[in-house]
Amino acid sequence: MDLDRRLSFLREIDRLKSVTRASPLLDRSRRENSAEHSWHLSMYAWLLADYAAADVDVSRVVKMLLIHDIVEVDAGDSPIHGAVDAGQAEKEERAARRIFGLLPASQCDELIELWREFEAAESNDAQFAKALDRFQPLLINIFTGGGTWTDRGVSYEQVLERYGPASERGAPQLWALAKEWVASHFKREPAER
Amino acid sequence: MDLDRRLSFLREIDRLKSVTRASPLLDRSRRENSAEHSWHLSMYAWLLADYAAADVDVSRVVKMLLIHDIVEVDAGDSPIHGAVDAGQAEKEERAARRIFGLLPASQCDELIELWREFEAAESNDAQFAKALDRFQPLLINIFTGGGTWTDRGVSYEQVLERYGPASERGAPQLWALAKEWVASHFKREPAER
Repeated sequence: MDLDRRLSFLREIDRLKSVTRASPLLDRSRRENSAEHSWHLSMYAWLLADYAAADVDVSRVVKMLLIHDIVEVDAGDSPIHGAVDAGQAEKEERAARRIFGLLPASQCDELIELWREFEAAESNDAQFAKALDRFQPLLINIFTGGGTWTDRGVSYEQVLERYGPASERGAPQLWALAKEWVASHFKREPAER
Repeated sequence: MDLDRRLSFLREIDRLKSVTRASPLLDRSRRENSAEHSWHLSMYAWLLADYAAADVDVSRVVKMLLIHDIVEVDAGDSPIHGAVDAGQAEKEERAARRIFGLLPASQCDELIELWREFEAAESNDAQFAKALDRFQPLLINIFTGGGTWTDRGVSYEQVLERYGPASERGAPQLWALAKEWVASHFKREPAER
């Protein structure tokens, strides 16, 4: 019975592979989906943990990033440059209760608490995870010569405003580097160096 | 310089999202790729760790599964029901040296050793990881009413032979359950219960 519940959850989250994000793959062949994005971010966390603003538990950050987008199975992706949906947070909370609720109680509690910690962005682990969740799509845009910035007509100032605070808080050295790239992409002098 | 190398690696492994596996998504809309498969397997490891044959370090198994297929960026996927390529192991070893070699030396060593441990399938962690790498595609076939077994005309006996040993060694209870499902799928009495 307990195993059935774990397998139901593992089966349900297969749908994350069909949630399409705004960001392209680096070869621009198609858009990234949220499952492979979660895999990639987990690799970022593992390999860039030295750049966290404060002490982090790498394995915890990896787990946090493995599950950070699972609510999108019900709630969909909400792109950083898209319109703000006032009901999104509530939709995601409902999704978390339904999807993590497929698991046996103790695992449900563990995953939902970790997801809420990520969303709250208060702990060191969550702030680092949030920073990477900004840094990775930013890098995609740099490496693809514009990506979602070009698609959505995003300005230099909007990039600084939308990626900066979370990136700087959780991974200031990565943000320092990213800022240079962003300035160079928009042909500006780096801001606030 | 060190950061450049980490980012080169993280950039290079984006290509794993374009390595297509034989297994379909559960909704059969397309085939799974190796990046999202790696994400899914990491979730399996985390949530099914109680079913490992022996004590395992869950975080290590998660990391092992995050990287277990990265060599496919160069070497391609070698499906369980495909023709055996005698040069595959050598191709993968060469791929591992090139791709993990993009990283700074200490991270390269860590990842390549973990990957080789997975391939060797001797440690508890690796045997559990290998078992899941059989169990997840088997479940896909069960949940999609045949999947790659139907595509490739795979028999009941071949399923037992190709999935059984690794699954049973690393996760005997999961294999016991899988065997029942396989028998039911092929309309046989469960073997060796």
